[in-house]
Amino acid sequence: GVNPDLASERLAASFSVELLTASLDGGAERTRMRRAVVEAIENDPVFSQENQYFQSQNERYEAAVKRAVYLQKKIREMGWSETGTEVQYIYRCLSGDIALSLHRVFMRSISVLGSDEQIAKWMPLATSYQIIGSYAQTELGHGTYLQGLETTAVFDAATQEFILNTPKISAMKWWPGDMGRSATHSVVFAQLYVHGKCYGVHPFILQIRSLQDHSPRPGVTVGDIGPKMNFQHADNGFLRLQNVRVPRENMLSKFCEVQPDGTYVRWGSQKINYFTMTSVRISVLSDEVIRPLMKACTIAIRYSVVRRQSKLKPGEQEAKILDYQTQQQKLLPQLAAAYAFHFINTYLHELFNRGYQDIQGKNFDSLPELHAFSSGFKAIVTQHCTSGVEICLRACGGHGYSLLSGLPSLYTKIIASCIYEGENTVLLLQTARFLIKCFMAASAGQPVPPSVTYLSSAKPGKCPAKNKSDFLNPEFYLKAYEQMASRLISSSAAKLQHLIQSGVEEYEAWNQCTVQLERAAKAHCHYITVKNFVETVEKLDNKAGIQKIMKHLCDLFALHGIFSNMGDFLYDGYLTTAHMDLVTASYLDLLPVIRKDAVPLVDAFDFTDKSLNSALGSYDGQVYQRLYDGARRSPTNQQGNPAYGKYLKPLLQNKLSKL
Amino acid sequence: GVNPDLASERLAASFSVELLTASLDGGAERTRMRRAVVEAIENDPVFSQENQYFQSQNERYEAAVKRAVYLQKKIREMGWSETGTEVQYIYRCLSGDIALSLHRVFMRSISVLGSDEQIAKWMPLATSYQIIGSYAQTELGHGTYLQGLETTAVFDAATQEFILNTPKISAMKWWPGDMGRSATHSVVFAQLYVHGKCYGVHPFILQIRSLQDHSPRPGVTVGDIGPKMNFQHADNGFLRLQNVRVPRENMLSKFCEVQPDGTYVRWGSQKINYFTMTSVRISVLSDEVIRPLMKACTIAIRYSVVRRQSKLKPGEQEAKILDYQTQQQKLLPQLAAAYAFHFINTYLHELFNRGYQDIQGKNFDSLPELHAFSSGFKAIVTQHCTSGVEICLRACGGHGYSLLSGLPSLYTKIIASCIYEGENTVLLLQTARFLIKCFMAASAGQPVPPSVTYLSSAKPGKCPAKNKSDFLNPEFYLKAYEQMASRLISSSAAKLQHLIQSGVEEYEAWNQCTVQLERAAKAHCHYITVKNFVETVEKLDNKAGIQKIMKHLCDLFALHGIFSNMGDFLYDGYLTTAHMDLVTASYLDLLPVIRKDAVPLVDAFDFTDKSLNSALGSYDGQVYQRLYDGARRSPTNQQGNPAYGKYLKPLLQNKLSKL
Repeated sequence: GVNPDLASERLAASFSVELLTASLDGGAERTRMRRAVVEAIENDPVFSQENQYFQSQNERYEAAVKRAVYLQKKIREMGWSETGTEVQYIYRCLSGDIALSLHRVFMRSISVLGSDEQIAKWMPLATSYQIIGSYAQTELGHGTYLQGLETTAVFDAATQEFILNTPKISAMKWWPGDMGRSATHSVVFAQLYVHGKCYGVHPFILQIRSLQDHSPRPGVTVGDIGPKMNFQHADNGFLRLQNVRVPRENMLSKFCEVQPDGTYVRWGSQKINYFTMTSVRISVLSDEVIRPLMKACTIAIRYSVVRRQSKLKPGEQEAKILDYQTQQQKLLPQLAAAYAFHFINTYLHELFNRGYQDIQGKNFDSLPELHAFSSGFKAIVTQHCTSGVEICLRACGGHGYSLLSGLPSLYTKIIASCIYEGENTVLLLQTARFLIKCFMAASAGQPVPPSVTYLSSAKPGKCPAKNKSDFLNPEFYLKAYEQMASRLISSSAAKLQHLIQSGVEEYEAWNQCTVQLERAAKAHCHYITVKNFVETVEKLDNKAGIQKIMKHLCDLFALHGIFSNMGDFLYDGYLTTAHMDLVTASYLDLLPVIRKDAVPLVDAFDFTDKSLNSALGSYDGQVYQRLYDGARRSPTNQQGNPAYGKYLKPLLQNKLSKL
Repeated sequence: GVNPDLASERLAASFSVELLTASLDGGAERTRMRRAVVEAIENDPVFSQENQYFQSQNERYEAAVKRAVYLQKKIREMGWSETGTEVQYIYRCLSGDIALSLHRVFMRSISVLGSDEQIAKWMPLATSYQIIGSYAQTELGHGTYLQGLETTAVFDAATQEFILNTPKISAMKWWPGDMGRSATHSVVFAQLYVHGKCYGVHPFILQIRSLQDHSPRPGVTVGDIGPKMNFQHADNGFLRLQNVRVPRENMLSKFCEVQPDGTYVRWGSQKINYFTMTSVRISVLSDEVIRPLMKACTIAIRYSVVRRQSKLKPGEQEAKILDYQTQQQKLLPQLAAAYAFHFINTYLHELFNRGYQDIQGKNFDSLPELHAFSSGFKAIVTQHCTSGVEICLRACGGHGYSLLSGLPSLYTKIIASCIYEGENTVLLLQTARFLIKCFMAASAGQPVPPSVTYLSSAKPGKCPAKNKSDFLNPEFYLKAYEQMASRLISSSAAKLQHLIQSGVEEYEAWNQCTVQLERAAKAHCHYITVKNFVETVEKLDNKAGIQKIMKHLCDLFALHGIFSNMGDFLYDGYLTTAHMDLVTASYLDLLPVIRKDAVPLVDAFDFTDKSLNSALGSYDGQVYQRLYDGARRSPTNQQGNPAYGKYLKPLLQNKLSKL
């Protein structure tokens, strides 16, 4: 049965959970279909993640490979498409705990960067799993800065081959997924040399393991990079190459080619490469970043109405911890952020799809904006969601620290998103560079993309708000965000110009402004997130109370942002300290309002118990029983205790220790 | 050999690393002695932590028990004292990766709470390890709120025994260290009932396992609570009791007793119980909280001068990442905080020792201040250090995410310190309660402890600073902190009073102020930390440039605090936006100054490579070679790949998949 404290929360919902779920999902039909697919997968024991928290790295890897292979079989049996909705739903319910995901990136890179002949040769082999691919770009010594890669590919005209080498230890490929123990082939990035001249980084298809017995090919040293904070299921690998030869035809050559005599030919635009990165950054957000925050909120909020601790009112029963203002202040802003980021994700996908259409029409104008947005939002969403998951974990006290709560794994996994697909600081500075350019253009009266026109229109002013309810008017808080972002960008630009004019070299001036530029880029993305939330709420159906509760969440997200970054807003002059008191009061007033709907708001995320995999977060709220059941299943209680016989018994019965 | 990029940093030191180490250690003699002890332990293979990152929970536990038992033997052989300096050094170098640490808490609780007869009976048994003890307070359903514990102890006058029970699942003991698999005895806290009347929570000595074969005693269900985010070496346990009887003499009875006829007698002060908690909170900071931050700084800063990435100046070699302003802004404030907290730790120990002397003279006046300070500083130091370690981890990019870097383990362990020994929010609100009381007393002209006299003396004013160098004057920034803390406390008090006067019940008014009260308590502790740093620097010897570099760190710590909490300072009115520009400029100017000495400043923490256990942080800076060596030693490369034969081979050679 459901814990009565949790059940009573659901009875009090001010809106229809079903309708909200459908609205988040893109319709009730999709929800229904997703549930059917998820149920089929979750009932299959191969896909069970029940013992995940007890497994070693080797066990996790083996289970992930088993799942990947079994899923291929299932996809063939069911006639699903590899990129279809069903497979998407399955990935959602497996939470990425599956091997061979880099095989898809291997295929994507061949289809994007390969010539027609290369596609015709390699894609059928990959699609039918006669080979398993990986994607080897990052090296021990180089990540985000691709130009610095040190692996070399020297053209040997005599044999019509490239000779690949790892000239020093820092040039070893390091981190590629599926490479450590699984892949037979890889797309390897290396500096191309022809007749002694370097042509920069190019991709080569390389066989790394035998198709007979899986042993490394001659000249290849390959293995797993060892233990990580999470991703135990993935065999991230290293690769060392000593005079490994590949035929001339193995350099991916949609955009450039080395001809038999060594002539280097380049054609087509290189810009499209950015587009692939942009697409990966956007696609990662929903599954790997926003959904984990939604899960963490679900776990922490359900637990916080089951857990009772200490007395709020003397003489009464102990209070649900969610009734404490401090607990609300921890969790409810994370809940609001999960919704805010879900909506910004939709916004980014629309922006991306429009850009993609333009590109198909050979119009590359939207690429800079798309690149700047995907970089900046990847950075702020991963950062916010990572810190949100940590807050949820800590808000569950000691039990949040048990792996059985599900929270530690969410945290140790999501924190990687701040690093992979571009380190966040580097990305934010790319966004900042775009913003500074737009600001300069706007100042010179030149046209800029619609998303940044506010840079020229924002004028200093004073907020007209007179009482705390005025701050529930989006016009007032949006204006505050706009002013603040615009001021941070313009003042960074001014500092930059000032330094350059006073004789500091441009690269050094840029470096001296980066702390402020990073802040400005964050402020811009924060502003756009609030703006998009406001616009989303306006467009929502007002049926069944959904618009109303979403408006509360939007207000909370906006006001929490002001409350937490008071300095940036006060500095601006648009808001005074008297306004800050109103913002604070209005923000704190919202907490108990949203608290009433907190459980229905996480129920609407519609996670199954199996995908949450949490003793604290299950739908029935039987947290203590589930913790106990989990403990009893742990290997620490399943085997005897060899330490007793070996060390404790002799100690307890040591003659020296006798009285 | 040492990596030349790292070696060159050391040549440029502006101060003597040896002298700074000695000054942090309490003298060169102590440093010398510590090094000798640490070396002896580290060279003993039993104490090697080399394979820690590859071990399962069971393996970690077994190794930790082995170490604990072996250490006992060593202590006896060497004739060391269990509480002596040598043993302290050994614990420092083992980083807590050792079992039976709760045995000490078991003994401490008997010696503090037990009668003379109880001490005479139990202490020799414990000291000679004829029994192994644990300390069972926390339950599944109750942590910080001790009054809510549900385990019962009912007095049976007929048999002169207490009958202990776990009446429901939430009453099960949960988390006690060493209980899951090791302990034979435990101090168990339970609600005492005599003749149907409840007398509140009392401690009982209970045997939980047989001394013959270690099996659970009748009525006892005991085991390990399963996987955790870290602390795999510790067998945190659960304990379920069904009509377990202990003799009347087993209730610890220094302060109260149940007499044979059931008469309950209490004598002595209960306040001394707080003192034990205070002592634990303070003692945990140095080893479990500040030192991990120092280690994380050592790892991240050494790595940041070895790692070169991207070009700062076109045409030049790639730059050391520590030369980027954004990297300095991440790491150097953490370094300054590590020093700030090292010094506040000394301050707290002095406060504690003075309080202890008072108490021995039966003067309990300093208890409230001590309790408030130990609570507040426990909270802010654990919070700052946890977030500092996370920043260091992320600042190392992908390699920071490898367990081999040492950073993930530091993080997953230190985050527990925000929860154990009192949840931070609960603790900060206790500090706030003390501050509000002091504020009210001061307002009424009553005397208050010296540390909070500023609450009555702070008067609104304007900062007289005119240029950025003025903010290197501690007088100016201290005044800003003082005003800010004082204003946050007085305005929380005003809100509280206003609510109560307008008819809100006191408990509800308190709840409605807790977000602001928590902020006020943090501000107070932050102010005291800055003040103590300033005073420490003033007292430092100016020999060999130490005072100068410490002054820089102190300035950085103070200005970073203002830069990061701009809102609280601007709100106050003491600093204007023009001042904020000066603070920002002064703060950013300090970064490159401290950056020059960053490596010597972490070298001075004087960690051995073995205790850092980090491929990125070793003294020689051979990061890539060490990552590679670590990967090769990983179990993922030591055994074959059963997943190949079972799943990949059939997939690759599947007839269905043939073209």
